[in-house]
Amino acid sequence: MSTLIKGGTVIGSTGPYAADVLVDGETIAAIFAPGKGPEGPDVIDATGKYVIPGAIDAHTHMQMPFGGTQASDTFDTGTRAAAIGGTTTIIDFAIQRYGEVVQDGLAAWHAKTAGECHIDYGFHMILGGVDDDALKAMDQLVASEGITSFKLFMAYPGVFYSDDGQILRAMQRARDNGAMIMMHAENGPAIDVLVKQALERGETDPIYHGLTRPQELEAEATSRAIWLAAVASDCPLYIVHLSASKALEQVKAARDLGRNVFAETCPQYLYLTLEDQLGAPGFEGAKWVCSTPLRSGKETHRADLWQGLRTNDLSVVSTDHCPFCMKDQKEMGIGDFSKIPNGIGSVEHRVDLLYQGVVDKKLSLARWVETIATTPARMFGMYPKKGVIAPGSDADIVLYDPNGRTRISVETHHMNMDYSAWEGWEIDGRVDTVMSRGEVIASGGEYTGRKGRGKYVPRALSEYLI
Amino acid sequence: MSTLIKGGTVIGSTGPYAADVLVDGETIAAIFAPGKGPEGPDVIDATGKYVIPGAIDAHTHMQMPFGGTQASDTFDTGTRAAAIGGTTTIIDFAIQRYGEVVQDGLAAWHAKTAGECHIDYGFHMILGGVDDDALKAMDQLVASEGITSFKLFMAYPGVFYSDDGQILRAMQRARDNGAMIMMHAENGPAIDVLVKQALERGETDPIYHGLTRPQELEAEATSRAIWLAAVASDCPLYIVHLSASKALEQVKAARDLGRNVFAETCPQYLYLTLEDQLGAPGFEGAKWVCSTPLRSGKETHRADLWQGLRTNDLSVVSTDHCPFCMKDQKEMGIGDFSKIPNGIGSVEHRVDLLYQGVVDKKLSLARWVETIATTPARMFGMYPKKGVIAPGSDADIVLYDPNGRTRISVETHHMNMDYSAWEGWEIDGRVDTVMSRGEVIASGGEYTGRKGRGKYVPRALSEYLI
Amino acid sequence: MSTLIKGGTVIGSTGPYAADVLVDGETIAAIFAPGKGPEGPDVIDATGKYVIPGAIDAHTHMQMPFGGTQASDTFDTGTRAAAIGGTTTIIDFAIQRYGEVVQDGLAAWHAKTAGECHIDYGFHMILGGVDDDALKAMDQLVASEGITSFKLFMAYPGVFYSDDGQILRAMQRARDNGAMIMMHAENGPAIDVLVKQALERGETDPIYHGLTRPQELEAEATSRAIWLAAVASDCPLYIVHLSASKALEQVKAARDLGRNVFAETCPQYLYLTLEDQLGAPGFEGAKWVCSTPLRSGKETHRADLWQGLRTNDLSVVSTDHCPFCMKDQKEMGIGDFSKIPNGIGSVEHRVDLLYQGVVDKKLSLARWVETIATTPARMFGMYPKKGVIAPGSDADIVLYDPNGRTRISVETHHMNMDYSAWEGWEIDGRVDTVMSRGEVIASGGEYTGRKGRGKYVPRALSEYLI
Amino acid sequence: MSTLIKGGTVIGSTGPYAADVLVDGETIAAIFAPGKGPEGPDVIDATGKYVIPGAIDAHTHMQMPFGGTQASDTFDTGTRAAAIGGTTTIIDFAIQRYGEVVQDGLAAWHAKTAGECHIDYGFHMILGGVDDDALKAMDQLVASEGITSFKLFMAYPGVFYSDDGQILRAMQRARDNGAMIMMHAENGPAIDVLVKQALERGETDPIYHGLTRPQELEAEATSRAIWLAAVASDCPLYIVHLSASKALEQVKAARDLGRNVFAETCPQYLYLTLEDQLGAPGFEGAKWVCSTPLRSGKETHRADLWQGLRTNDLSVVSTDHCPFCMKDQKEMGIGDFSKIPNGIGSVEHRVDLLYQGVVDKKLSLARWVETIATTPARMFGMYPKKGVIAPGSDADIVLYDPNGRTRISVETHHMNMDYSAWEGWEIDGRVDTVMSRGEVIASGGEYTGRKGRGKYVPRALSEYLI
Repeated sequence: MSTLIKGGTVIGSTGPYAADVLVDGETIAAIFAPGKGPEGPDVIDATGKYVIPGAIDAHTHMQMPFGGTQASDTFDTGTRAAAIGGTTTIIDFAIQRYGEVVQDGLAAWHAKTAGECHIDYGFHMILGGVDDDALKAMDQLVASEGITSFKLFMAYPGVFYSDDGQILRAMQRARDNGAMIMMHAENGPAIDVLVKQALERGETDPIYHGLTRPQELEAEATSRAIWLAAVASDCPLYIVHLSASKALEQVKAARDLGRNVFAETCPQYLYLTLEDQLGAPGFEGAKWVCSTPLRSGKETHRADLWQGLRTNDLSVVSTDHCPFCMKDQKEMGIGDFSKIPNGIGSVEHRVDLLYQGVVDKKLSLARWVETIATTPARMFGMYPKKGVIAPGSDADIVLYDPNGRTRISVETHHMNMDYSAWEGWEIDGRVDTVMSRGEVIASGGEYTGRKGRGKYVPRALSEYLI
Repeated sequence: MSTLIKGGTVIGSTGPYAADVLVDGETIAAIFAPGKGPEGPDVIDATGKYVIPGAIDAHTHMQMPFGGTQASDTFDTGTRAAAIGGTTTIIDFAIQRYGEVVQDGLAAWHAKTAGECHIDYGFHMILGGVDDDALKAMDQLVASEGITSFKLFMAYPGVFYSDDGQILRAMQRARDNGAMIMMHAENGPAIDVLVKQALERGETDPIYHGLTRPQELEAEATSRAIWLAAVASDCPLYIVHLSASKALEQVKAARDLGRNVFAETCPQYLYLTLEDQLGAPGFEGAKWVCSTPLRSGKETHRADLWQGLRTNDLSVVSTDHCPFCMKDQKEMGIGDFSKIPNGIGSVEHRVDLLYQGVVDKKLSLARWVETIATTPARMFGMYPKKGVIAPGSDADIVLYDPNGRTRISVETHHMNMDYSAWEGWEIDGRVDTVMSRGEVIASGGEYTGRKGRGKYVPRALSEYLI
Repeated sequence: MSTLIKGGTVIGSTGPYAADVLVDGETIAAIFAPGKGPEGPDVIDATGKYVIPGAIDAHTHMQMPFGGTQASDTFDTGTRAAAIGGTTTIIDFAIQRYGEVVQDGLAAWHAKTAGECHIDYGFHMILGGVDDDALKAMDQLVASEGITSFKLFMAYPGVFYSDDGQILRAMQRARDNGAMIMMHAENGPAIDVLVKQALERGETDPIYHGLTRPQELEAEATSRAIWLAAVASDCPLYIVHLSASKALEQVKAARDLGRNVFAETCPQYLYLTLEDQLGAPGFEGAKWVCSTPLRSGKETHRADLWQGLRTNDLSVVSTDHCPFCMKDQKEMGIGDFSKIPNGIGSVEHRVDLLYQGVVDKKLSLARWVETIATTPARMFGMYPKKGVIAPGSDADIVLYDPNGRTRISVETHHMNMDYSAWEGWEIDGRVDTVMSRGEVIASGGEYTGRKGRGKYVPRALSEYLI
Repeated sequence: MSTLIKGGTVIGSTGPYAADVLVDGETIAAIFAPGKGPEGPDVIDATGKYVIPGAIDAHTHMQMPFGGTQASDTFDTGTRAAAIGGTTTIIDFAIQRYGEVVQDGLAAWHAKTAGECHIDYGFHMILGGVDDDALKAMDQLVASEGITSFKLFMAYPGVFYSDDGQILRAMQRARDNGAMIMMHAENGPAIDVLVKQALERGETDPIYHGLTRPQELEAEATSRAIWLAAVASDCPLYIVHLSASKALEQVKAARDLGRNVFAETCPQYLYLTLEDQLGAPGFEGAKWVCSTPLRSGKETHRADLWQGLRTNDLSVVSTDHCPFCMKDQKEMGIGDFSKIPNGIGSVEHRVDLLYQGVVDKKLSLARWVETIATTPARMFGMYPKKGVIAPGSDADIVLYDPNGRTRISVETHHMNMDYSAWEGWEIDGRVDTVMSRGEVIASGGEYTGRKGRGKYVPRALSEYLI
């Protein structure tokens, strides 16, 4: 069965062109100059719409265990919300905790996802304990499991934290097996000192979550990760959720040297601030407690991050989707900001929020598509299967209506959260139709897919290295 | 009449994918997943070959007048050689000399090209005299003549030289009408002092051409152009034939700030050196006299330029094709290097020479295509008509054989030169078939097109701005 | 006859120490630990006071001819005011205009100063026309006339402007004979375009003097001078009246490379702004028209300059003293800011204004003395005769009272100006006693010296090179 | 009793001047213009000699305990050798080990030094375990013990290592009490991985000591310390034994921002290399095993360090004197470089080795004195008592003979070492006479002082902060 998406403007990484896209089964069969397609197939009228590759969210944490609770979106609710928002693939983080067998952690995530996902998905692997066994497991996951990226933490001593020796060893192994090291770059031991001091001073409100994680400690860790990757013979390095100007400077300096250093940022860092959100009255700021934290609006972080996206010093926009409800979850931190579960939920809104950047002249159409779909696919070994409108690629396609309008609210969103981090925001554009492997799974805001249709995507090595 | 290019691997700016390309008349009608194309059309078998957009050489000087003689390639011989080498579009430089009417200069170039070109062509306009009339002419050329880029010279006092006040005025005008300013960035007045001093010391050999143009004077002028563009409210600026590490640093610094500053380099700077070529015994070095000059192989220029191409601090590779024969032309400078006509001819070899960078792991396939075809098209307002394999685009297509082999020699080249700057060089790859607007004009090294088939391409404003 | 300055705190370049200073005749005979000096001599009680070397103002323009008028301070009035303010040596600029013989220009300045000066003085030489004769004259002045620094202008085309070829030649000569090149670093040709455009738009008020000289054009010229000095084999370069953050960045970058690049700033750039002074209502801003201009108080210029003084990226504070009265002089520019004579008069106030920086914790005592006295002496070849409290040095000594208080006003100042650029400013400190070559010439604000006592100081080569 | 040092050239931080120095008792009573001193006193003829302040070695480890043995120089032998070499003050490191009371560590060092030292001495305090008690002890040592600098280690996990949280806490305390934090900046955890891997590969020779401590891991730690100091509100930071270009870049960047970041280097890094010394055949390289290690002579480290000294990005030259004999001590590491005691002995030779830099035109006379005497005194709170030739200062004076000649050898040196790290080196200059608090303790290479005459120097806070 085939479908012709007709009359639209395809947006590629180098710009727009008018074309009709023929979908046959699960893949794109052909792309035609306007009007040159066949007569037979069903037609989706894309007149006046942008035809873009289904977006890829390379950083999600569905139902992630946390302190006796877990992130509020399951793979079911989370991937359904993602789909409605134009995201057709996620890469979630499977977790090895300290003392666990890496493969057991992976198996647990396969178990969680089995039969649950509405869209395709892959896994990065979090290594919570780098030792000889874990290093061997890295090789096996790369060779046989389609896992080609491993995340380490310079924060959270006693939880996920790796010391610099462990980081170096994992980087050396990644250099040898071709994998990408992803880094949560914040200086955990120093932050813990500041947190303890703040609490001792009675500074317990949510805003102190941000004030005890100054950008210098993100910049430092980013810099350190880059140095360690150099010692590991230029192991590919990807900084997650970069939030701050000084951290960006570190990435920029490495990239100027032609190093294989990459970074993502997230919508919250592009729009929200320490003062306006994290500093909201009372306990409301808890809604925006995430790490790295929101940064001061009095400084140039947001402008610098937008610029970084334009210049490709920031290569990817992911969400770091890790939602918790206020009730019972965020509320665990009343009277002690350090107990507030860390995370914001945006998996449904990333495509829209970044399109607003196009409307605001902060991003070109080409970079919009590149940062939310094409580069994630290339960066994480899914290209050209995913991330591009090309013959032979999976028919993961979004029709985006630049004349539509999107209003975000907890009343209307599909994520399992009892609040929205973006309540009341309005975007000049709207996800019109979402196709996943040839199937229309959302249309006009209505979900038409089904649980369990999403498939695991084993990933190759990154094709994005310099 | 239609043709199906079947079995090849299409290379786009974000990577390769297998696809069959259907050409109908002058344009690409469709791109099919392998084997999904129609049965009817003629078939070109591209099995084992790369299918890339016809290359664009954004910097040529065919039959450019110079001191009573002119560049040895006419538009006839030069565009024919370009075609055989896989280049399907050139942008040549029309010239206004000091005191001339700009439009008259343009008309002269239209007259020279009429009925002569084998491939499509556009013009940049050299402004040799920036005054009120010239500024008005800029507006008219942008609005009505398809000329959207203007070249100025910081070198050659008394010939093409513009002083900083003239440069500023032209940049202000370009900022207002949207055009791109292209800059020959060398400090001419300082170079003239060094040249005079060298000649007075009896230093007359070709190598002194390079020694009297130290990289500091290219870096200085590059920096100055960037400052002046800032004063002109960030007028888009494109540095031509960037040759040196320190000049690249200036461009890199501006790009880190998100400025609309771009640069091209040329094959000669990527491969050849002051010592090995310009310093060849006797007068032989004259073959490689060009400005900016070849740089010292003892320094890191070549590695830095390759890196700049990888990081997109250098966006384009052009040839600055400006050939002169040794006999009667280069020989004018025997005993006085300053009289050697400046220029090297490479228009036929750029696609091959850059492919060698892919073989040598200095460039990805994606960046190869991007730097020689896609970015030039975007940079100079010809996208998506040119520079991309996409439905609706002109069917300017090259089949490139990675298993072929190319040997460069004056014996076999098609440019009108009595020597080759690349004599004896061998490349691991070969231009197999060249199609221009749907017509196969070269195949297996044989030219099958005809003079006069090339059309003038009026250009839009750049779509490449940040 | 000898005098013992007793009980004070001597301030040297590395910090304060308590000591008694014995002056014998024109020089310092000895320095004693407190109380260890001889009994016989006259005693000046310096208890509670700082004993510092007489300050050196390395940049003045007494009675400088300008457009039919001349700077309002003669060598008589200007050096008397300087003396009262604690400055015991000036270096003024002798001028060769285009077409003149350099030595004639020097002779004219010797004629002007003969019998007029109250304090010692030296000359820099302005070269308004660099040609073969001027280059030879440089050698002669260095060898025989005690002139070891030559100033060039990148601004003022048609007046003092040297093109880059001339600059390069002068730098090469300086490199050979050891002299220092001083540079007025502003891009004159570009500024002239902006000035003309502003006047055409009817922007005639004094503030447009600043707005048509954006910092980018100072930074550019500073950068260019540094590049040219590199081409001249690292000729020593001294940037005069540096006013702007971006210009400072250029100097800093060169100094990080260990280059012999130095810069001075002036009190006006440390305290005054484009908005508050140059933008004063009506024509009042004319009081502060000088080039380089005052910079925007909305940017970080002033803080950056103070920091540059702390880090020695700025080595010297001079005044660029070039006073003009409002009446008849500044008023020439009513209705056309470009006709306002350029200059501010501060020769009397520099020691106080910089001491305020000490009070405000922006500068250490040691750096105060270093920037206003010791470094100028070393930079310009007068050390240890001048600029230091050391046995054998000229007894140019200032007793500075940190408990005193200075109020600046046209009512009380001694410069020949009908306004003060610092009207109403109050400083926490006061020049108490000024000794020049052993003679007390000012005390408690009263002048006790006499016209003609100042001597010409032939200067050696700089001892400050890295 | 008084002495007149007559006929010499005094070298200060801003340059030389001729003067006679009168010593009365333990201090300098007066400095006279040549010939103006009194007739009575004994005269030391300094004609043709430089008169410089006694040098200060701010980094020594006399009889430092190490793995069952201890550094081979006692305070007796070490300070005697220092004296002969022109050093009249050392600052040694008292040590608190993890679990010890800080004040007990200090008391131990007072006990070791009591009655042993030939010259004056102070202490820095090494904190091997930063906890609440240690932080309180910092305050007490600053307030009452004359200890104003505290050293932490980012290397040596399990021995002296502090984690980033501990470092931050110590820095915060230092910021509050005004002390200086000194940092051994190498990433210990990462180095330990490389060391283990090397040994597993059978790489046991001394050169692997250097190869497992790549400069990136010094640069990283340097950078991290600078970031942490910023989080501690710009706590003053002093990087010890900086050895590498990339580490210097970090310091330079901080200093360009006006930060209170300082660094020392040591003679070994200025002259010796990984290949020539550490890579000497067999086990001989063990002589030069120290941390940070000698760096590759194929890179620009040495030139960059000399330049850093010229530009004051490196402020001090110390020795890090920590000698071990080959026999029984260095030999502990045969077959395992990681067991070689770390340290080189140069306390006797620093003044000479740096003077060679003056002869080689790498350093001015003024900077020679500044880096070995004046700045250490100012940096560590001993100015103007020490580090300067000024009335009232301690009469610690060295007569240096620029026409002398020094040959270094184990045969002739006075340090307790069975080899010389500088065997056979010849210097164009010679320590002639050494005076400590008015007493001539060495003359013509003969020691004339006595054990126990050296006094403890309690130190004030640094006066060198920007």
